[in-house]
Amino acid sequence: MNDDLRQLLDDVAAGRRPVDDALHALETLGISAVGDYARLDIGRAARKGVPEIVFAAGKTSDQLAAIVARFLERSAAVVGSRVSAEQAEAVRMAVNGVVEYDARARMLVVHGLAYESPPKRGAVGILAGGTSDVAVAEEAAIVCREMGVTVSTAYDVGVAGVHRLGGPLAAMIEDGVGALVVAAGMEGALPSVIGGLVDVPVIGLPVSTGYGFGGNGEAALMGMLQSCSPGLAVVNIDNGVGAGVTAALIARRGAI
Amino acid sequence: MNDDLRQLLDDVAAGRRPVDDALHALETLGISAVGDYARLDIGRAARKGVPEIVFAAGKTSDQLAAIVARFLERSAAVVGSRVSAEQAEAVRMAVNGVVEYDARARMLVVHGLAYESPPKRGAVGILAGGTSDVAVAEEAAIVCREMGVTVSTAYDVGVAGVHRLGGPLAAMIEDGVGALVVAAGMEGALPSVIGGLVDVPVIGLPVSTGYGFGGNGEAALMGMLQSCSPGLAVVNIDNGVGAGVTAALIARRGAI
Amino acid sequence: MNDDLRQLLDDVAAGRRPVDDALHALETLGISAVGDYARLDIGRAARKGVPEIVFAAGKTSDQLAAIVARFLERSAAVVGSRVSAEQAEAVRMAVNGVVEYDARARMLVVHGLAYESPPKRGAVGILAGGTSDVAVAEEAAIVCREMGVTVSTAYDVGVAGVHRLGGPLAAMIEDGVGALVVAAGMEGALPSVIGGLVDVPVIGLPVSTGYGFGGNGEAALMGMLQSCSPGLAVVNIDNGVGAGVTAALIARRGAI
Amino acid sequence: MNDDLRQLLDDVAAGRRPVDDALHALETLGISAVGDYARLDIGRAARKGVPEIVFAAGKTSDQLAAIVARFLERSAAVVGSRVSAEQAEAVRMAVNGVVEYDARARMLVVHGLAYESPPKRGAVGILAGGTSDVAVAEEAAIVCREMGVTVSTAYDVGVAGVHRLGGPLAAMIEDGVGALVVAAGMEGALPSVIGGLVDVPVIGLPVSTGYGFGGNGEAALMGMLQSCSPGLAVVNIDNGVGAGVTAALIARRGAI
Amino acid sequence: MNDDLRQLLDDVAAGRRPVDDALHALETLGISAVGDYARLDIGRAARKGVPEIVFAAGKTSDQLAAIVARFLERSAAVVGSRVSAEQAEAVRMAVNGVVEYDARARMLVVHGLAYESPPKRGAVGILAGGTSDVAVAEEAAIVCREMGVTVSTAYDVGVAGVHRLGGPLAAMIEDGVGALVVAAGMEGALPSVIGGLVDVPVIGLPVSTGYGFGGNGEAALMGMLQSCSPGLAVVNIDNGVGAGVTAALIARRGAI
Amino acid sequence: MNDDLRQLLDDVAAGRRPVDDALHALETLGISAVGDYARLDIGRAARKGVPEIVFAAGKTSDQLAAIVARFLERSAAVVGSRVSAEQAEAVRMAVNGVVEYDARARMLVVHGLAYESPPKRGAVGILAGGTSDVAVAEEAAIVCREMGVTVSTAYDVGVAGVHRLGGPLAAMIEDGVGALVVAAGMEGALPSVIGGLVDVPVIGLPVSTGYGFGGNGEAALMGMLQSCSPGLAVVNIDNGVGAGVTAALIARRGAI
Amino acid sequence: MNDDLRQLLDDVAAGRRPVDDALHALETLGISAVGDYARLDIGRAARKGVPEIVFAAGKTSDQLAAIVARFLERSAAVVGSRVSAEQAEAVRMAVNGVVEYDARARMLVVHGLAYESPPKRGAVGILAGGTSDVAVAEEAAIVCREMGVTVSTAYDVGVAGVHRLGGPLAAMIEDGVGALVVAAGMEGALPSVIGGLVDVPVIGLPVSTGYGFGGNGEAALMGMLQSCSPGLAVVNIDNGVGAGVTAALIARRGAI
Amino acid sequence: MNDDLRQLLDDVAAGRRPVDDALHALETLGISAVGDYARLDIGRAARKGVPEIVFAAGKTSDQLAAIVARFLERSAAVVGSRVSAEQAEAVRMAVNGVVEYDARARMLVVHGLAYESPPKRGAVGILAGGTSDVAVAEEAAIVCREMGVTVSTAYDVGVAGVHRLGGPLAAMIEDGVGALVVAAGMEGALPSVIGGLVDVPVIGLPVSTGYGFGGNGEAALMGMLQSCSPGLAVVNIDNGVGAGVTAALIARRGAI
Repeated sequence: MNDDLRQLLDDVAAGRRPVDDALHALETLGISAVGDYARLDIGRAARKGVPEIVFAAGKTSDQLAAIVARFLERSAAVVGSRVSAEQAEAVRMAVNGVVEYDARARMLVVHGLAYESPPKRGAVGILAGGTSDVAVAEEAAIVCREMGVTVSTAYDVGVAGVHRLGGPLAAMIEDGVGALVVAAGMEGALPSVIGGLVDVPVIGLPVSTGYGFGGNGEAALMGMLQSCSPGLAVVNIDNGVGAGVTAALIARRGAI
Repeated sequence: MNDDLRQLLDDVAAGRRPVDDALHALETLGISAVGDYARLDIGRAARKGVPEIVFAAGKTSDQLAAIVARFLERSAAVVGSRVSAEQAEAVRMAVNGVVEYDARARMLVVHGLAYESPPKRGAVGILAGGTSDVAVAEEAAIVCREMGVTVSTAYDVGVAGVHRLGGPLAAMIEDGVGALVVAAGMEGALPSVIGGLVDVPVIGLPVSTGYGFGGNGEAALMGMLQSCSPGLAVVNIDNGVGAGVTAALIARRGAI
Repeated sequence: MNDDLRQLLDDVAAGRRPVDDALHALETLGISAVGDYARLDIGRAARKGVPEIVFAAGKTSDQLAAIVARFLERSAAVVGSRVSAEQAEAVRMAVNGVVEYDARARMLVVHGLAYESPPKRGAVGILAGGTSDVAVAEEAAIVCREMGVTVSTAYDVGVAGVHRLGGPLAAMIEDGVGALVVAAGMEGALPSVIGGLVDVPVIGLPVSTGYGFGGNGEAALMGMLQSCSPGLAVVNIDNGVGAGVTAALIARRGAI
Repeated sequence: MNDDLRQLLDDVAAGRRPVDDALHALETLGISAVGDYARLDIGRAARKGVPEIVFAAGKTSDQLAAIVARFLERSAAVVGSRVSAEQAEAVRMAVNGVVEYDARARMLVVHGLAYESPPKRGAVGILAGGTSDVAVAEEAAIVCREMGVTVSTAYDVGVAGVHRLGGPLAAMIEDGVGALVVAAGMEGALPSVIGGLVDVPVIGLPVSTGYGFGGNGEAALMGMLQSCSPGLAVVNIDNGVGAGVTAALIARRGAI
Repeated sequence: MNDDLRQLLDDVAAGRRPVDDALHALETLGISAVGDYARLDIGRAARKGVPEIVFAAGKTSDQLAAIVARFLERSAAVVGSRVSAEQAEAVRMAVNGVVEYDARARMLVVHGLAYESPPKRGAVGILAGGTSDVAVAEEAAIVCREMGVTVSTAYDVGVAGVHRLGGPLAAMIEDGVGALVVAAGMEGALPSVIGGLVDVPVIGLPVSTGYGFGGNGEAALMGMLQSCSPGLAVVNIDNGVGAGVTAALIARRGAI
Repeated sequence: MNDDLRQLLDDVAAGRRPVDDALHALETLGISAVGDYARLDIGRAARKGVPEIVFAAGKTSDQLAAIVARFLERSAAVVGSRVSAEQAEAVRMAVNGVVEYDARARMLVVHGLAYESPPKRGAVGILAGGTSDVAVAEEAAIVCREMGVTVSTAYDVGVAGVHRLGGPLAAMIEDGVGALVVAAGMEGALPSVIGGLVDVPVIGLPVSTGYGFGGNGEAALMGMLQSCSPGLAVVNIDNGVGAGVTAALIARRGAI
Repeated sequence: MNDDLRQLLDDVAAGRRPVDDALHALETLGISAVGDYARLDIGRAARKGVPEIVFAAGKTSDQLAAIVARFLERSAAVVGSRVSAEQAEAVRMAVNGVVEYDARARMLVVHGLAYESPPKRGAVGILAGGTSDVAVAEEAAIVCREMGVTVSTAYDVGVAGVHRLGGPLAAMIEDGVGALVVAAGMEGALPSVIGGLVDVPVIGLPVSTGYGFGGNGEAALMGMLQSCSPGLAVVNIDNGVGAGVTAALIARRGAI
Repeated sequence: MNDDLRQLLDDVAAGRRPVDDALHALETLGISAVGDYARLDIGRAARKGVPEIVFAAGKTSDQLAAIVARFLERSAAVVGSRVSAEQAEAVRMAVNGVVEYDARARMLVVHGLAYESPPKRGAVGILAGGTSDVAVAEEAAIVCREMGVTVSTAYDVGVAGVHRLGGPLAAMIEDGVGALVVAAGMEGALPSVIGGLVDVPVIGLPVSTGYGFGGNGEAALMGMLQSCSPGLAVVNIDNGVGAGVTAALIARRGAI
């Protein structure tokens, strides 16, 4: 059950590996070669199709380019969120790989030369209540796609016109999505309404649209947390990346 | 246009009223006999069918009974909100009139002996999202009825089962309600959904049900304020009386 | 009572419409052809004189122009709020209609070529406590006018000089306004004072003037929600559009 | 794809069902027999192994007993949360079924006589940081079990002794749990730490333990929302039921 | 100008007081015998008619009695605020003096046997918006009276009936009050209205009446802080004692 | 006691003034000629040495210039707060009077040609904890001076070096200041310390210096409200004008 | 540098320890036998004189007794905070050791039979602003004493009488305290004042005394965080235990 | 023990110093020559190696340069925090000394010509969770170094990769650091994790990184305050200077 560690001990016992070397291996690995705890982390490093994700806000173009380049050495795909056009250009200049930039979602996707698309596995539906919620919803969509998950989207299906929701939602359910990401600003009621209609896990994604009292996304967050629809969990305001990763992790499970 | 004041001046001019007496009348009336401003207030005292309303919370039974009795001298109807059973009993003992107590809504209605029902005028629809919102919704209903407004109610039509909403709402619209009061706790999405469906003014009534972050009614209030459905205005958390008075004022206008 | 649906069923029963076609119609319509619920929405589409309203903040000039143009296809009037001069100019270039821009209120009104003024119905009074509240109050005024409601205004009648209030308020009441919109920043006491004087429904409109603790409009909002004047409901901070729509809906009822 | 509706239309077309009767059926069903939207809801009613869930707080024993009894007519299993011992006893007296009460979690499970356990499908791991978080964690565990999901738990693995976490967490991963629920009060760091170690979706469950500033669970909620571990979504403070339903929905997907 | 200190130095210079003794005097006095700073404090101890004030909440009856007794040794008058009837009784048993207890204001006044009323100096007017604000207003009144200030009061003059305000307010101004204390809960607009009418300093005293959002006195506090009436300063919610002391200090100045 | 009104009634009684004319006078005056309430306001208009005060923030240079010019017609002195250099220049161009601008305090003082300094009456001491609090403190100083009150100031006497406080404070007390304004940002402890040393009323003026949690002046405000020093009242954050007016009103009382 | 691990590897290499046994040792220790990380924890277990600390609030008497008994097996001293008299009695019944209970501080100290006092090392001074802060301050004092640190205390030295502070504070400094704990409620200014006078690290301990806005200790916390006295760090409201442990850790360093 | 004061008294007693002169000396010194309280402050002035610290934000370049120059007259070292490049340049021009500017930390260090490095005493470890926390952490590092304390740093050791933490932390402990400063934004869990591993006092330094709800550093602050690791105290958000001073004060104690 703990094969790496057993191998190391076996090697030491058999004199195949000097004690000093073994000790150093453990120490330089930190805890990573030892115990169940460590094994989990090794498993993580080996996961396929999980991009490294960099939060670009507050970094200079140079800093971002350097970080992306470093990550690209150990991961075939790097995703940047909250990336400005200038930052994207700087990365493009600095790295040896394929760089795509989505200006609306302010997302950057960089694929190293050795990159292979992850095998398609699972599907996620992403809905948004209004046009101003789309940028954040697209954050989630891009992350899902990078994780090999098929994405279908339906934007502009807000609560004020709740009858427009039926068709797209039904299509998603029929397509067998494993999770829904529902982005909504202002009062943030859409995830709650959808959670009352379907039995697929819903990730509520509050968006910082709105104005006045609670207009920074707090009303949306609070409303989703208060929702009487069980089966609804939320991420932080504007955290499209977090919603996308969670939904993709859900959708990939059990998908063939 | 300012008949009381003109009469007074005429009387003074004609020597029918001494200046000192006129001066004193004005002063003891405060501003009430003078100017448009004052006339409004006189008009108010003369309004038919508007009960006096007493907020009973934090008053002793004796204090409440005394206040109700005093109000009953100048108004044929007195309504008490947040009234405990003990308080209600104390009022019943103390006043000379017909006392009704609604334990669920914790509302007390007292009619003096000279009371005549106000003429029926206008209709209000009152909806509530869940059983725990009913007590506050009933506050509104009782106030409306005391103001001579017909009330129709539909409780337990919350967002999680939004399809249950259609029938009752349509019936209310068809009955020609002049305003809707929509009570909702937790995420408070119901008024927003309804505001997107109808063109009757909606009074959102946030209720202090829920738990955790925003569970004291703040999530509901914030959500209603953020609503993207125009035509929705709100009152404070659990303020069923305020919602009822506002809705009744709206509904009585233009009703024959 | 549900004529569209009955017609469809009659046609099916009479063999005038194949089942598959009827089924598809229902499904593609979503819920829109069926039940009272749907009918309400159809009723809404048919409402006369209700402009489409677009919140321009956070949209590029191009996006706004495109949205306004699209709305203009199905509605003869489109109103934009929080519109910058640049955005207004972009819309003017893009649409085929009459474009008016009010720089103070930052409101845009666009009338399609087929536009006819809605018939005049009802009146609303709009009051503001200070000069800095006027822009938001004008949002409400413009929306009311677009809905065919007569507007009378009285600005600069704040609580600190409450005696200046009497004349204009009395004039409005005499003119038979069906609702009052009262805009106030800082401590937001004006709606409460007015609500104590008149028996017309009052829509409190908190404005984000002020400074320090509660200076973003929160003090005004809180004060209006706490008001001891029943008959007062509020909209969110700076939500002049919402206040205007609500007041217009109220005023149009019962007006001839 | 919409069999109920097709059947109805077929019956009407074939003259087997009068138009009036069909019309009434649709109307009394609300929108439930029509369109994709409705179908979803019908699908929901037919879900196997999803208990009805009642929030008992704020209900009298009589009210709760009545609600549980009513629910038991249409669902073989009913779960009550925040149930006091008195309430539990009242339900036991009132219903004809098997009643189990967990005093620590304050959860009530009622199975009707026709109840059959749902087939086992999927597994969820539930972890808690301290002994005071266990009651809320158990809410989640009970809900999961009622949904046919296998539950393994590890309590008292808080961040202050993070090394105690390795073993149980590894065992859960090895057992193939489809989701983790991680309950934590005070600073709420545990879900974040775990989210950094595993690639299973984590549902953060903030608990209202702690004291002073942020001690009502708000610190825990905020910390989880801020987490830099993607793949972590949260429910409201103390919402064990919501966490359990979400985790169970995730775990059942793709499980054989 | 610094007589105590000069005396001490003179005594030392004249050999009337040994250095060690002088040094000890200074040290045991802390800084109290030295410098301008200290002199102020000595001046304070000598002030006539300023009672010691004890905040009784959270103290046992025994603790309170002991503290009052100790204070009574050095001050002829002791005032207790937030005193329960039990606490008052305990004090009465424990001290050798005249004990008066005001149950409504929950204030206790204890006069030692050597107590002489302070000479009457200055006048304060105290107004309250509603009956529930009276207890807190009375806190202020009692403190003022103990400080030798004449108090006139006008309760139940809230904003909703602002015209009732004129008479009592004018009487107070005419009586030459040096300051006004205006207690108000809910939206707390009364001090603002009054501040706009008079040129006497107004101490706003927010009261924790009200409900829902801002109902703990925060709306009143915020509103007073936002007031556009200059000449208005505030104390904390329910701090009648602080309002009373401040108003009395103002009123005593310049009074003969 | 109500001479204007008596005159009017006398004139009417004597036939010197027609009823219609008298009626109109009262109405156009609003309530201003009638009752005690009105008299107060008339009294206010007649106050000497009280400048009109304009809050310039959020006004264009043109708007500000126009307002100042209008005010200058009825008041010999106008003060502007939060005035930018550009605004000040615009006013200078627009008005016929003496314009002084204090760039640090961002205050503008405009004296009409007929302006005479108010007679000196009373004294106020103004203290500030740090250099960044000086601008706000100077707001208060300028307002006091315009009201004819002598001002002495001591800046940079913060709590961290509380021993520097003694000298200046003693000097102020000795000079007989009638009130102290104490400006402090960050933790705002200075007014509390001073309030414990002196028996002059203290106006706490919280300043929006500081950073992080509570750094917008909220910590200072909260601390002053919580102060255990009675005799301390506060104004809103950065409200130097309000603090100055209040202190000047206090100081002028009783001063010869 | 990692002796435990090296020993283990040496033993394995030398055949003194079978691989299976070594593997098991590592796994059952979790990560505790491996790497620097783990060694730290072993080091912690070996610390002398650090009691186990149990937060008793929200635990039943039985639960508390069981936890204390379990802790007593591995630690000679156990401290309980927020312990009620009933809980204390239950512990006394259940454990085999010396039990002391401090009712004012609600602290419980249990010493196992093998307990030896830790050697005295270092000194801490604890000051409190008012009598209501003493209970929390005593929490800190008891924890310090259990850690072998000498404690000197000075209570009732609040800011309002800051001159009382000098003597005790100087005595503490002279006694060579290594850290100060300063407890203060209301505005919480005392730690800031003290931090400006001494160069010993100060741990601010905000206490939940006070009332109204910020009265739950939030004003005190905020004030301390804003303090302009560097060298001041804070713990959460009422967290006497945390303040005590931190101060004791500081004081023990470098003490002989 | 109070030598300055005794000397003065001796001189007065011996006639070596006239009383007037002694009196004046005390007064002009304020309280600084007298009593324990004052002595502390004299001690402070004599502290070696404590730089004066100036908060530059909100000051003009000229103001800052003037302040630094003034401080340099009485202190050999001056540190500026939140200094812009422009401000730094202005100081460089203005002062006669060695000026170093760290652009990342925005810290300025100015040494007068007579500056001598303080003797090295004690060591502090500084850790940061992410690259965006480094600037604030460096504030602490620079302050520590100016106080003669050796600093070792480990950045990018956040909770999401908690296993990277072991090595650097162990090295610091081995090097005998007397205190740790742990900077963390977002959920701020790192100080809590570290506090559970070591028995060195930890100063939590919350950083204003993050986004959405609690993203301004409030989540980090709250989490650290809630930490269940005793031995952890915190400073305000982004207050690197305060953390550095506190840690240096701790580390210097007991260090040889």
